[in-house]
Amino acid sequence: MPLPSAWTSPPQPTDAAARQRALARQGMLTKPSGSLGRLETLAVDLCAMQGHDHPVIDQVAITVFAGDHGVCDEGVSAFPQAVTGQMIANFANGGAAISAMARELGASLEVVNLGTATPLEGQLEGVRHRPIAPGTANLMRQSAMTEDQVSAALQAGDAAAGRAADAGAHLFIAGDMGIGNTTSAAALACALLGEAPEALVGPGTGLDAEGLSHKAAVVVRALQRHGGHRDPLTALQSLGGLEIAAITGAIMGAAQRRIPVLVDGFIVSTAALVAVRQQPQVREWLLFGHRSAEPGHQRVLDALEATPLLDLGMRLGEGSGAAIAVPLLRSACALHNGMATFDDAGVSNRA
Amino acid sequence: MPLPSAWTSPPQPTDAAARQRALARQGMLTKPSGSLGRLETLAVDLCAMQGHDHPVIDQVAITVFAGDHGVCDEGVSAFPQAVTGQMIANFANGGAAISAMARELGASLEVVNLGTATPLEGQLEGVRHRPIAPGTANLMRQSAMTEDQVSAALQAGDAAAGRAADAGAHLFIAGDMGIGNTTSAAALACALLGEAPEALVGPGTGLDAEGLSHKAAVVVRALQRHGGHRDPLTALQSLGGLEIAAITGAIMGAAQRRIPVLVDGFIVSTAALVAVRQQPQVREWLLFGHRSAEPGHQRVLDALEATPLLDLGMRLGEGSGAAIAVPLLRSACALHNGMATFDDAGVSNRA
Repeated sequence: MPLPSAWTSPPQPTDAAARQRALARQGMLTKPSGSLGRLETLAVDLCAMQGHDHPVIDQVAITVFAGDHGVCDEGVSAFPQAVTGQMIANFANGGAAISAMARELGASLEVVNLGTATPLEGQLEGVRHRPIAPGTANLMRQSAMTEDQVSAALQAGDAAAGRAADAGAHLFIAGDMGIGNTTSAAALACALLGEAPEALVGPGTGLDAEGLSHKAAVVVRALQRHGGHRDPLTALQSLGGLEIAAITGAIMGAAQRRIPVLVDGFIVSTAALVAVRQQPQVREWLLFGHRSAEPGHQRVLDALEATPLLDLGMRLGEGSGAAIAVPLLRSACALHNGMATFDDAGVSNRA
Repeated sequence: MPLPSAWTSPPQPTDAAARQRALARQGMLTKPSGSLGRLETLAVDLCAMQGHDHPVIDQVAITVFAGDHGVCDEGVSAFPQAVTGQMIANFANGGAAISAMARELGASLEVVNLGTATPLEGQLEGVRHRPIAPGTANLMRQSAMTEDQVSAALQAGDAAAGRAADAGAHLFIAGDMGIGNTTSAAALACALLGEAPEALVGPGTGLDAEGLSHKAAVVVRALQRHGGHRDPLTALQSLGGLEIAAITGAIMGAAQRRIPVLVDGFIVSTAALVAVRQQPQVREWLLFGHRSAEPGHQRVLDALEATPLLDLGMRLGEGSGAAIAVPLLRSACALHNGMATFDDAGVSNRA
């Protein structure tokens, strides 16, 4: 299985001329200069990404990537592994947080099942079954994926970005579901950043202090086995997850198709870090929705030089923290497109 | 002119039984406990305020209160005073930030003109003219308002809350427009909190360092004239603005009518502080939209024990920072009402 072209080629740059026009317009709107704070920057960034003067965030495409993690054998999660499959059914039935948010936003929601430990029964609406393996191998003891598996996961993500582009998405959100995936993401981020596991391992779905200490020990052993600073593909293959690799592919695929990406929390940001390490220009296509309560997220955000829009103590995954931030992008567009200029409104500018 | 009953009587408490039911439901939804962070607290608070199990933020009533400030004679603003009236016309014509946000939210927007220095010409759609004075008196030299004027402004605010209640509002937002009003709010907050002007005076619409120093000196002289720690009514009358007093009345009127209030930035929070100092139970009805870049806001938030939802470097007023936060409340409701429970979805809870 070849790597997707989004992995091997950089995306186009964003539109510098549209950015300049947007900055000029922000200075003419009926408000003190800078008084809309980050909503001004957001509008300008969206103009640059979308390449025109009236940014739009109507069509939002959300894809949740799900997969199981062999490292669950080491007892790293507060929830049983069967929950990954059960939550896929919950997405399909509209009961998960991201389901409720997709309805609230009028966003499309699809789930890509990359492989669960417990086989899923029956047809599930909105779920694409693309099983690559019944979960990854146990990254503490061997490489999480084979070369073919990581390529297939990257391809599955890229294909989701392709469907979003075909549907005319103005914004792409990737979400994650995979019991054990904060262990995988912590190990992957440690390898890429050269950080110690203690700095990046967190409680995930709700470990106590003892569980946390055990999880850190698992990550230490995984890093000893697979080495630290690595090239993005090797790190992703040996320490990542099927869904994490697919998210990396989706982010890169969206950037290559000129679709802005609103990044969720720890898992998705770690996948974004892999993408940016491989193709630094991907960074131009990323906006960051929220700061997760999972402690490793801040280190990953720092490495990406990212300041998220929201800081609400969320730590759910599924893309929920990005979905919550979508209305801020829509507000930024509404203000940029809908406000009068000083001249139009006959309002005096500064004395 | 008598004081409104919302000033002289406390509001009803929020519904403790609804709060307990909401807390229990949050623990049953298909997510790790606490993983929606402040969106969980928000949903629980809204259940307690609205007194039922399915909180709703469909109908949002926004009222912008406008008035001029005599202290502009001292040269405390970067913008000319005529802008207050010009912006009232801009609200009416749909060109201001709050106009664009009201459209984006599907919220009602009315403007209450409490008195401008420059008379307004012609009929303006959505503007209620309730002129109490052509702006306040210069608070550095005399009391900003008479006893009758402050009562009339409180009544005008209470009446706006009454209209919101009649329209079935699920949420009330007060906004402010008044060149010079950060000077008035800083003086008022200093008087109520016993803080030094240096801690609370900020650049407002955009003063430079010299302008800021002059503005602080004006506040120092105002406080020398009118005294420091004061009872809320005296402080409001001597140092407040027509629009600030009206916002205080509107917040108290909304609380008395059991309408949750989403508080905006420095000006509205200072008006809320007056309300809470007069009737402490008003605090139960307040949610806080954003942390303003205006430095005095943090001190006022601290005094109200409030942590706003957003921190985006906004400093515009008009209620814009509260309006931007409305979708977070709607998301909290969508999640609380729309997610499945572990039992319903057949998802395993913690191991």
